[in-house]
Amino acid sequence: MREVFQQELQEVQERLVEISTLVATSIANATEAFGDSNISLAEQVIADDDKIDALAASLDELAIDILARQQPVARDLRIVVSALRISASLERMGDMSEHIAQLARYRFPEKVVPKSLRPTFVELGQLDVAIAKKLTELLQTEDVSLAEEIRNDDDRIDELHLSVFDKVLGETWKGAPADTVDATLASRYHERFADHAVSIAKKVAYLATGDWVGADL
Amino acid sequence: MREVFQQELQEVQERLVEISTLVATSIANATEAFGDSNISLAEQVIADDDKIDALAASLDELAIDILARQQPVARDLRIVVSALRISASLERMGDMSEHIAQLARYRFPEKVVPKSLRPTFVELGQLDVAIAKKLTELLQTEDVSLAEEIRNDDDRIDELHLSVFDKVLGETWKGAPADTVDATLASRYHERFADHAVSIAKKVAYLATGDWVGADL
Repeated sequence: MREVFQQELQEVQERLVEISTLVATSIANATEAFGDSNISLAEQVIADDDKIDALAASLDELAIDILARQQPVARDLRIVVSALRISASLERMGDMSEHIAQLARYRFPEKVVPKSLRPTFVELGQLDVAIAKKLTELLQTEDVSLAEEIRNDDDRIDELHLSVFDKVLGETWKGAPADTVDATLASRYHERFADHAVSIAKKVAYLATGDWVGADL
Repeated sequence: MREVFQQELQEVQERLVEISTLVATSIANATEAFGDSNISLAEQVIADDDKIDALAASLDELAIDILARQQPVARDLRIVVSALRISASLERMGDMSEHIAQLARYRFPEKVVPKSLRPTFVELGQLDVAIAKKLTELLQTEDVSLAEEIRNDDDRIDELHLSVFDKVLGETWKGAPADTVDATLASRYHERFADHAVSIAKKVAYLATGDWVGADL
């Protein structure tokens, strides 16, 4: 029974890695679609989100099934409950990619943000992509140093997020209201994407180390 | 054992109602703080969010403890797993109230949105407050007609949310960039608040009726 359980946990882990890999592709594509006003890539991100949703729902069913059949306790139980939560966060990360792609689509053939903000959004996009890759690796390897890196990347994202507001509320801002709306939403989506990654990273780090504090399991 | 389990489920339900009641107070206060630029009420909403977070975390511990001790299966298992998810959504609803209150605080002593948008935000606030009250009653009574009402209220909120964008992107918009940012974020927070309520309502309706479709349990 124990061996079966371990195999099932491994399947849960593999499925989380699979979803996280798709999320990483989705944010990379969304970032490119957003930066280059690439409409077909934006459409692809939007279509791919259904796949992420379906995989997350299917993983949830597996996790609930494991709870019913294996009736895990203690740490094993927390692993399965955490998988449910990680799946929900990954699903939301996919939604954020989709929202970023939708902004590119709405504004097409115009670019989403004016020139003065592009370097900021390039960096936000790169950081979100880096975070998604690190998250996938963290889920695969449980190397907790990656959790620390994700937290640091998120700190930088928070700075950039605030700098977007400084820019659009500053005296030199010449953007139209549409630019202000897009910058506000796009920045928020990038920041939320990273927040979900941090929340997942904390859970994985807790499970790997037993360090409870702030893991919110 | 079964009787103990039923008592524990009842405690889970009571705690969900307790958190939902606090969320309803929090959105009512946030709406008032937002509409009247009431800074002390805004501060209170922000402080009260810690209480919501703590109650949600404590409920999660109870639910995990029930899973470990009672090892429920089938519908009982889904009730406990749903409680974990409902708790997470209520916690996010509290965050949205907090964000709305923070907007009021940032902008104080100015009002958050210009006159032309105030009726829209008054209605958004009223609908969110109504939804939170209905959600509390739904969690208490499992009267699924309330889930339907919440869905309808959410449809109206989606309309209002879109109308905010129409307004700030329209030719008659004279707002400063700060007004555009605030309207964009405030509208998004009101809309997300309602989305979480709909997601909870679907779960409760599923559990009450066994109608699986779209319940995302």
